[in-house]
Amino acid sequence: MEFFKVVSVDDARELIRNEFVGYQMGSEEVSLLEAQGRVLAKDIISGINVPEFDRSTVDGYAILVQDSHGATESIPSILEVLGEVLMGETPKHEVRSGQALYVPTGGMMPKGATGMIMIENTEKMDQETVLLFKPVNKGENMVFKGEDIKTGEVALEAGRRIGPNEIGVLASLGINNVKVIKRPTVYILSTGDEVIDLDEELQMGKIRDINSYALSAMIREIGGEVSGREIVKDDYELLLRGVKRALDQADIVLLSGGSSVGTRDYTHRVITDLGGKGVLAHGLSIKPGKPTIIGDGKGKLIVGLPGHPVSSIVVFKAIVQPFIQDLLKAPVNLRKVEAITTHNFPSSPGKETYHMVTLKEEDGKILATPSFGKSGMITLLSKSSGYIVIAQHEEGIDKGETREVYLF
Amino acid sequence: MEFFKVVSVDDARELIRNEFVGYQMGSEEVSLLEAQGRVLAKDIISGINVPEFDRSTVDGYAILVQDSHGATESIPSILEVLGEVLMGETPKHEVRSGQALYVPTGGMMPKGATGMIMIENTEKMDQETVLLFKPVNKGENMVFKGEDIKTGEVALEAGRRIGPNEIGVLASLGINNVKVIKRPTVYILSTGDEVIDLDEELQMGKIRDINSYALSAMIREIGGEVSGREIVKDDYELLLRGVKRALDQADIVLLSGGSSVGTRDYTHRVITDLGGKGVLAHGLSIKPGKPTIIGDGKGKLIVGLPGHPVSSIVVFKAIVQPFIQDLLKAPVNLRKVEAITTHNFPSSPGKETYHMVTLKEEDGKILATPSFGKSGMITLLSKSSGYIVIAQHEEGIDKGETREVYLF
Repeated sequence: MEFFKVVSVDDARELIRNEFVGYQMGSEEVSLLEAQGRVLAKDIISGINVPEFDRSTVDGYAILVQDSHGATESIPSILEVLGEVLMGETPKHEVRSGQALYVPTGGMMPKGATGMIMIENTEKMDQETVLLFKPVNKGENMVFKGEDIKTGEVALEAGRRIGPNEIGVLASLGINNVKVIKRPTVYILSTGDEVIDLDEELQMGKIRDINSYALSAMIREIGGEVSGREIVKDDYELLLRGVKRALDQADIVLLSGGSSVGTRDYTHRVITDLGGKGVLAHGLSIKPGKPTIIGDGKGKLIVGLPGHPVSSIVVFKAIVQPFIQDLLKAPVNLRKVEAITTHNFPSSPGKETYHMVTLKEEDGKILATPSFGKSGMITLLSKSSGYIVIAQHEEGIDKGETREVYLF
Repeated sequence: MEFFKVVSVDDARELIRNEFVGYQMGSEEVSLLEAQGRVLAKDIISGINVPEFDRSTVDGYAILVQDSHGATESIPSILEVLGEVLMGETPKHEVRSGQALYVPTGGMMPKGATGMIMIENTEKMDQETVLLFKPVNKGENMVFKGEDIKTGEVALEAGRRIGPNEIGVLASLGINNVKVIKRPTVYILSTGDEVIDLDEELQMGKIRDINSYALSAMIREIGGEVSGREIVKDDYELLLRGVKRALDQADIVLLSGGSSVGTRDYTHRVITDLGGKGVLAHGLSIKPGKPTIIGDGKGKLIVGLPGHPVSSIVVFKAIVQPFIQDLLKAPVNLRKVEAITTHNFPSSPGKETYHMVTLKEEDGKILATPSFGKSGMITLLSKSSGYIVIAQHEEGIDKGETREVYLF
């Protein structure tokens, strides 16, 4: 019998972080639209000013703002109209005191002008004369050269996840190719004589490989990539070969399934026999998910996940997801909501406990009800909206408490 | 001068919904892992029982539960061991009163057995004898055939977005191909003589096409697809031809840019001249984003978005995103968080007002501070965490109020 080293969830995260602190993903270059959802590998330093010229943000007249001071509906300022600036063109005129030049929204401001008056606040008397009915301040209704982003400024920091707004900033800088952090790759080995794949015929006593599909989707959702998936029978040699193959092809190896004592023993032996640091922890103080194995194979993280779908997903979220996010150097951005519990939630002494819940809205309040279901069930997940985490030291949750619910 | 019909945001949503109520996306079949993020086109009715057999969820002994009743540490029940069930195999024995059969986690329950006792609560005396130290209830530590999902049951409803949990359910049913709703396609025409694409050289007076990139990312984020993007000069004929081409290739056409009065006129005329219902609304009671045009071209939605990046994105979120989600028949699932405002937020009378905010956590509370920036700026978006919506009838927000912040 091996020595079983059971660790808390916090300790497991710390253990993994310390063990693989030197593991770096490196970067790659992708096109702007491919960069969506990826993480910036380095600061984006602007090579240009945005805008590159003083620019109007309204339809109206470019003026020297002091010419508008004191203007009212009853006593308007009267200015000479020099003409108009066409979109996308450099103004032909310079504006001096007493003069105005029409500039459309987005148009380039003429030399001399210090602000824009909106067309709604003016009246054109004839071709050469315009009345202003309102004062404007310096820089009003216009953006100065470099006011949005300056040359040499850090427009976006490394580690930032690229969403629509970041894509907008990159487009404004004319950046078509972006250096992003490589996606951490994961290889999933589903273990067990009873496990069959989707395209195999279901026989009595066998079950479908559920976990590797759900895990694949979760990995991709947080920015990782599945480099391979395969089913391995309960056999020491086959498993050892499978893990070695997986380590060659991925940054992280997940062994899914194998909650039975027999399979756990194989997994433990295989990780030990890889010649690296071997098993780092065997057993996690988490409910559900205790039969988890954490190991180091050739400097890469190997996690033996429990076999039940819910346990497997809970352990993935608790310890594998934070590691993938560390590798991506991206801040954790979990979707969560505050909800009032409709029941008491028990905890397991000394364990971090994950309760699946369903949410409903009543009188503007969000209520969280525990989902009931046995631990082997996949519908326990699909019928839940999210989960509540009870910390290791807590003694359960009372009905009526407000708690954070992590959404699926 | 055209008749300008300004509508509220709610009315615009209603108008679009009523106008295009008959517009259907249709469905297509994709593989299970490709289905991630897509929306189920029809109910998934299970053709099998999950599990297909009574199944143990622990390592232990299958027994008739009445044989365990009254068992304690000091007065254990004594049963005859029949042998063991191997993983993935049909049991060779039937269990009768006084008998026990070893079954691993995930293994098939033998005939006769009504519950499982965990190995931790037993002690094996010799090859043929086991002691039970605890009573178990009927069905404990096992899942009955069909208890997770029954044959004929609706396992997942049409309209459900497919995430990791749904993929798990589909895998458990052996479903490799899934009918999903087709992605709504959007064609983006960026209008304006000043607009140039990323690969063009930046000249004085020109600006990069920011909006179509940010919009593309937003469209993909909510499950749509960009079927084309192009830049069109401010010319009636070119724009008319561009819109016609776009209508042939997409479910929705967005005209981005063109906040100046001149461009708005072109857009209005082009929509009118398509021969359909033409312009449905010109002007939206929203801040920012008033110069918005909503039209119907050959039975398809055309929206002329304002030119400023922030306005363009606000209007997209306010009226285009809900329509795309209607087409997908998927519930809106906006990421939001409650935060305390650190300042007064003004509203514009009679307009739905969108304020960009930055969030920070202080003493466990989330605080929302208004982002300052002029309306033409892209960094107003990239420096914000999300936005607060002030309803049309509200008179601003006071400092210290708790409000929902929609996250980017």
